[in-house]
Amino acid sequence: MLPGGSTSVTTSMYSDGMSTSDRLIESTRELLWERGYVGTSPKAILERAGAGQGSMYHHFKGKPDLALAAIRRTAEELRASAEGALGGPGTPYERIEAYLRRERDVLRGCPIGRLTMDPDVVASDELRAPVDETIDWIRERIAGIVEEGKEQGQFAATLDGEEIAATVLATVQGGYVLARASGSPAAFDTGVRGLLSLLAPHSS
Amino acid sequence: MLPGGSTSVTTSMYSDGMSTSDRLIESTRELLWERGYVGTSPKAILERAGAGQGSMYHHFKGKPDLALAAIRRTAEELRASAEGALGGPGTPYERIEAYLRRERDVLRGCPIGRLTMDPDVVASDELRAPVDETIDWIRERIAGIVEEGKEQGQFAATLDGEEIAATVLATVQGGYVLARASGSPAAFDTGVRGLLSLLAPHSS
Repeated sequence: MLPGGSTSVTTSMYSDGMSTSDRLIESTRELLWERGYVGTSPKAILERAGAGQGSMYHHFKGKPDLALAAIRRTAEELRASAEGALGGPGTPYERIEAYLRRERDVLRGCPIGRLTMDPDVVASDELRAPVDETIDWIRERIAGIVEEGKEQGQFAATLDGEEIAATVLATVQGGYVLARASGSPAAFDTGVRGLLSLLAPHSS
Repeated sequence: MLPGGSTSVTTSMYSDGMSTSDRLIESTRELLWERGYVGTSPKAILERAGAGQGSMYHHFKGKPDLALAAIRRTAEELRASAEGALGGPGTPYERIEAYLRRERDVLRGCPIGRLTMDPDVVASDELRAPVDETIDWIRERIAGIVEEGKEQGQFAATLDGEEIAATVLATVQGGYVLARASGSPAAFDTGVRGLLSLLAPHSS
């Protein structure tokens, strides 16, 4: 967990070789995750990046433009890490289980999902696009795996791939809400176990 | 949906008979729902309430104290509306279905769940308490209904009430995330249908 408050020595957070532009993107990614778009000021971004006033406008058109670069980078990483679990070995059930159980910093929440609670992100088609596309991509990926499992007789033929995929994603996103409400990751795991018990192939 | 911007004529939003204290609480509830705690300034609260400077400190100790009153009132309403569905007529499955399908302003999200994405709410034991207690209360209520359904043979004996309850709540909370990401309530409904298809009593 990154410290929320002090930022005076934050230049050291990033390697010396990192460009100012990259430092700005990285500090924006962290602040968006911790405080959201509404709660992230250009001043806080500059302080954490150890960048001087004016450097944001030198590299980016402004806060929305920098935020878009940050959201896109986070979205790419999230997609890659989801694919790591969903594209791994195992049966369709096992791959969905791997996705649900993959290591997460549960109490920090989802860096993409949390943006949907941000009024300024949701109100901007441009900022919302990478959020929507990422969630949509993961959902389609899971829907395909559910259909595969149906063909193999692992999942009941009555299940709908799109619907189950939405339930899987919702359980993850809502699991963060339960965990953060209770201040403990346990609630996330409990919800995941419940979903897995409902999804588990029935021995027939 | 309330207008996000103009607040000059907002006094008319509340009935003339409402006390200043109540107007402050109601305007805080709306702003917390729309913009979160971090995004809600005392100035915006006063403007929307049509209340003068200083009235917040006359009635409340400050923004956290007023926010606590607002969150408590929202929590009570949420609990009552959940109980309206969960305590209604029907089988355990039907009562859970009624809860999942109850009318919601999906694109506004959950006024309690969204607070968990607020760093200042999560960091404050006092502000987080009503959020945690409300979610916990609904989860226990659903867990009891699942156990009832198991006794009646409607749900498989292998299911765990606490786990399924967490999955149900997570699907709702995560459903809001999917809906707001896509800009359409449909994604919420899709996730709910997926969960209901998994929960549906199997004809045996």
